[in-house]
Amino acid sequence: MIEAVGLDADDTLWENETFFRLTESGFAELLAEHGERADITRRLYEVERRNLARYGYGIKGFMLSMVQTAIELTDGRVSAATIRRILDLGQEMLAHPVQLIEGVPEVLGALSDRRLILITKGDLMDQERKLAASGLADHFDAVEILADKTPDSYARVLARHGIAAERFLMAGNSVRSDVLPVLALRGRAALIPHDLTWEAEHDDDPADDGFHRLDAIADLPGLIARLDRAR
Amino acid sequence: MIEAVGLDADDTLWENETFFRLTESGFAELLAEHGERADITRRLYEVERRNLARYGYGIKGFMLSMVQTAIELTDGRVSAATIRRILDLGQEMLAHPVQLIEGVPEVLGALSDRRLILITKGDLMDQERKLAASGLADHFDAVEILADKTPDSYARVLARHGIAAERFLMAGNSVRSDVLPVLALRGRAALIPHDLTWEAEHDDDPADDGFHRLDAIADLPGLIARLDRAR
Repeated sequence: MIEAVGLDADDTLWENETFFRLTESGFAELLAEHGERADITRRLYEVERRNLARYGYGIKGFMLSMVQTAIELTDGRVSAATIRRILDLGQEMLAHPVQLIEGVPEVLGALSDRRLILITKGDLMDQERKLAASGLADHFDAVEILADKTPDSYARVLARHGIAAERFLMAGNSVRSDVLPVLALRGRAALIPHDLTWEAEHDDDPADDGFHRLDAIADLPGLIARLDRAR
Repeated sequence: MIEAVGLDADDTLWENETFFRLTESGFAELLAEHGERADITRRLYEVERRNLARYGYGIKGFMLSMVQTAIELTDGRVSAATIRRILDLGQEMLAHPVQLIEGVPEVLGALSDRRLILITKGDLMDQERKLAASGLADHFDAVEILADKTPDSYARVLARHGIAAERFLMAGNSVRSDVLPVLALRGRAALIPHDLTWEAEHDDDPADDGFHRLDAIADLPGLIARLDRAR
């Protein structure tokens, strides 16, 4: 019996990566005279990866990494006007409207007999803004915004809510963040792939009985019903 | 009877503002040819205040505000090298060692018969780093890192932990963040002033029976013992 369901937010409940990609395009355009688009986004990705341990996830760290990449890529020749444009791109991201993924409100309604916990990572303020704007907050029994999604951080969430890992299923679009750490605790995980998923979140599908791959979030209630019957 | 004690972290348990002031000095030095130190820090403060609603609290937002201030203050003439130095200043802040405020471990030990909750705001990852480095984590029954400290966010914390506001005392160095929102819920609050407190956190002492002003955190166990006896 699945007693509690964890749901990732970015690119599971609402669009997110698409806004990062749009901003990345704008960033590459600003620096077009200094390189090919593919090279510029590659350099940006490398800077983001290097900064992850100090900045964590979220738009502010992304903004700082764009500024740093612009300086490095131009050997210090980037103009202040271009850096100002980079800050503007990031500030627009922080204000972007929330676009729900198809079927989300219906699925949350169908799962109202379970404890639903939104489990996300990133900037506190930005995630809270998006949740409020989504209109979905009332569906959730709890909201957990984590610095990172690791076995330890999931274990703390489950302990805080008194949930046994065997009765917990996590659903999200990232093998690395939503699937592997939960399976490590002997919980279950449903991968709901999104067309756009950040490169750092990719990983191979695990060979694990607790792992399920779905086509869309609309398939989640059916999976949970099947898991209930199997026990 | 005070059942649970909330403790602010920055400038209540460990030094924080001093690192912001040092960085601010470094920032003003970098821009010394563009203005007096007092004017530069005033401009930075204004930018920070304007950005608070989009960036929230913490070092990453401070870094972005420094970059923006440098561009505005120089009418776009700041060099990329100077902006790189600003990023370095911020990255050094993110790695600064944690300096406990005098008496903190002893006070937390003396309060071990209460539920102790660390309640702070700012960047998730940075606050978690500081708590881990502080060696204080084991003293706390719970850790709450909030986007902002408002009556609503305190009410959610108390509800989550099943604590009645009348049995809760919050201790910290900010009238605005640690005192007023808790008094609004009819909880108690102890102000422990710090020599350095960010201008945005200032407010007048409230005239309220639930408010107490202490000289130092070492006085907190005595205050709680007096409050216990008074009921």
